[in-house]
Amino acid sequence: MANRMEELLDVLKVPPGKKIDLKKDYNPDFTGKWLKKKEAKKTLAEGIQMLAEMQQKLYAQDQYALLIVLQALDAAGKDSTIKHVMSGVNPQGVDVHSFKTPSGEELDHDYLWRNFKTLPARGRIGIFNRSYYEEVLVVRVHPEFLANQRLPLTLKDKHIWKRRFGEINNFEKYLVDNGIIVLKFFLDVSKETQKERFLERTLLPEKNWKFSAADMKERAHWDDYIAAYEDMLNHTSTEWAPWYVVPADHKWFTRLAVAAVICNTMNKLNLAYPVVSEQQKQALLVAKKELENEGDGMEDKAVLKAKKKAASKKKNKKKKSKNL
Amino acid sequence: MANRMEELLDVLKVPPGKKIDLKKDYNPDFTGKWLKKKEAKKTLAEGIQMLAEMQQKLYAQDQYALLIVLQALDAAGKDSTIKHVMSGVNPQGVDVHSFKTPSGEELDHDYLWRNFKTLPARGRIGIFNRSYYEEVLVVRVHPEFLANQRLPLTLKDKHIWKRRFGEINNFEKYLVDNGIIVLKFFLDVSKETQKERFLERTLLPEKNWKFSAADMKERAHWDDYIAAYEDMLNHTSTEWAPWYVVPADHKWFTRLAVAAVICNTMNKLNLAYPVVSEQQKQALLVAKKELENEGDGMEDKAVLKAKKKAASKKKNKKKKSKNL
Repeated sequence: MANRMEELLDVLKVPPGKKIDLKKDYNPDFTGKWLKKKEAKKTLAEGIQMLAEMQQKLYAQDQYALLIVLQALDAAGKDSTIKHVMSGVNPQGVDVHSFKTPSGEELDHDYLWRNFKTLPARGRIGIFNRSYYEEVLVVRVHPEFLANQRLPLTLKDKHIWKRRFGEINNFEKYLVDNGIIVLKFFLDVSKETQKERFLERTLLPEKNWKFSAADMKERAHWDDYIAAYEDMLNHTSTEWAPWYVVPADHKWFTRLAVAAVICNTMNKLNLAYPVVSEQQKQALLVAKKELENEGDGMEDKAVLKAKKKAASKKKNKKKKSKNL
Repeated sequence: MANRMEELLDVLKVPPGKKIDLKKDYNPDFTGKWLKKKEAKKTLAEGIQMLAEMQQKLYAQDQYALLIVLQALDAAGKDSTIKHVMSGVNPQGVDVHSFKTPSGEELDHDYLWRNFKTLPARGRIGIFNRSYYEEVLVVRVHPEFLANQRLPLTLKDKHIWKRRFGEINNFEKYLVDNGIIVLKFFLDVSKETQKERFLERTLLPEKNWKFSAADMKERAHWDDYIAAYEDMLNHTSTEWAPWYVVPADHKWFTRLAVAAVICNTMNKLNLAYPVVSEQQKQALLVAKKELENEGDGMEDKAVLKAKKKAASKKKNKKKKSKNL
């Protein structure tokens, strides 16, 4: 299964340097053929378990960070993907940031500024629910947004999108070269499925609050968005920070594919608990002695309990590794 | 059970305006008598499920925020409590901040500054793993830390701790009066159990990295810390932001009690999904029509699918509420 999964991920990855055609090369309805929906829940649960374990090592090692960028049109399932893939991971190691309409202060800065401020610290997974990529998406589809930016007029020229692609590539290269792994997902939903999900929001009273008239307005720009996404994918899927186009018409598959890419990427980092240095080992021995002799030098209840617990944990570990 | 739980929480709450004696009035070994360890896992899972559901409403309603402050001596189980109580909740709605030794920039500000910056946004649960309370704990136990603060010398007088208690109470009152609910937990571990857990870290190779020689040094100040904690509890457990002293010698009980206090508090907020206004209802109807007529006016596949899905979800909901 691991091999087939790897093959699948290769299919979803946008090959750096190769031109793709969103409509021809990708299918929002795709579910990986050999994957079965009824097994998806179990497979996802296993993936989340693996993710939770690797996250603990990432945190303990405190060297790498993981930045996950999620981009999509409305109702593609960004929020529910975060919820289903990341619930179960220790929240102390995960930061989620949703980027909304920039504030006055944010517009007074360069466009990467607010993203920089919220980058994940080492040992953490950071999730950007929308990101600096909106600067070549919504801002491109709505020229009035660019007009509102406090950028000098001479820099608002026709080369701006290509320049931004280059700036973003350089930014991400810098991150990767500093131990911050960058993973990017475009959740690819079809116009039909968006319609279906929007309609559901109008039909179910408990989903009504999720509906926004603004979403309908954006739907009217569907083709412009697809064109902007395609250009973005063709210019910013790099060796160091590739894009994955994740079919998003079936939520169970979206979640599974996103979890698989994250697991696969973390797995390659060879994460491990920190190795204790000779000096630290000495300090450990000193502390051990000090704790043991705290009373009158006799082994008291706490010492005996700790030894018993440690012995039983060691035994369990041995048993577990034997069974693997 | 709900009633007994409420009684239990009353026992753990530090009564505002009443003087408590940490050693006499609280017992780190306490586990609530009628609660059984073997049932703890199931009860905790139910609590987390409840918490996850209420968090979704908190997020949707976008009015209240919840600030959870965790304070304790080393090895009391702060990290593992966060992990076990909060894993399962949507990470998009939870922010965890660990406050470590202040940076130069942070020392150049008042002591609440770095806490303010990381307060949870409306709709979110914010967890402070250590907090501004360190300013009346570690800073009080180690006078050299206060000496290092860039506070004018005349303000470093003998009244500083009492003044800080008052400042913190006012700060928390301000938060509560602005919709940010404040919950504070002191995880009360015994000196014996800390010894046991420290020893375990020295005995188990996979836990060695968790050991820090600095922790041993702090253990030597045990009595000073207890005195500082007691004074803090007696001055900052208020009607609007009470402290809970959670027995921490048994991790299963600590997690259960913390989850219970959080659930109980959120439950009282009467959280609910936002009610859609008349104007929004009109917009919904317009959108529904627009979507339905997008094609040639015929009900296409997406419309039929959405209607079918909505009908089946409505049916399920009815069934569920009947069974309750």
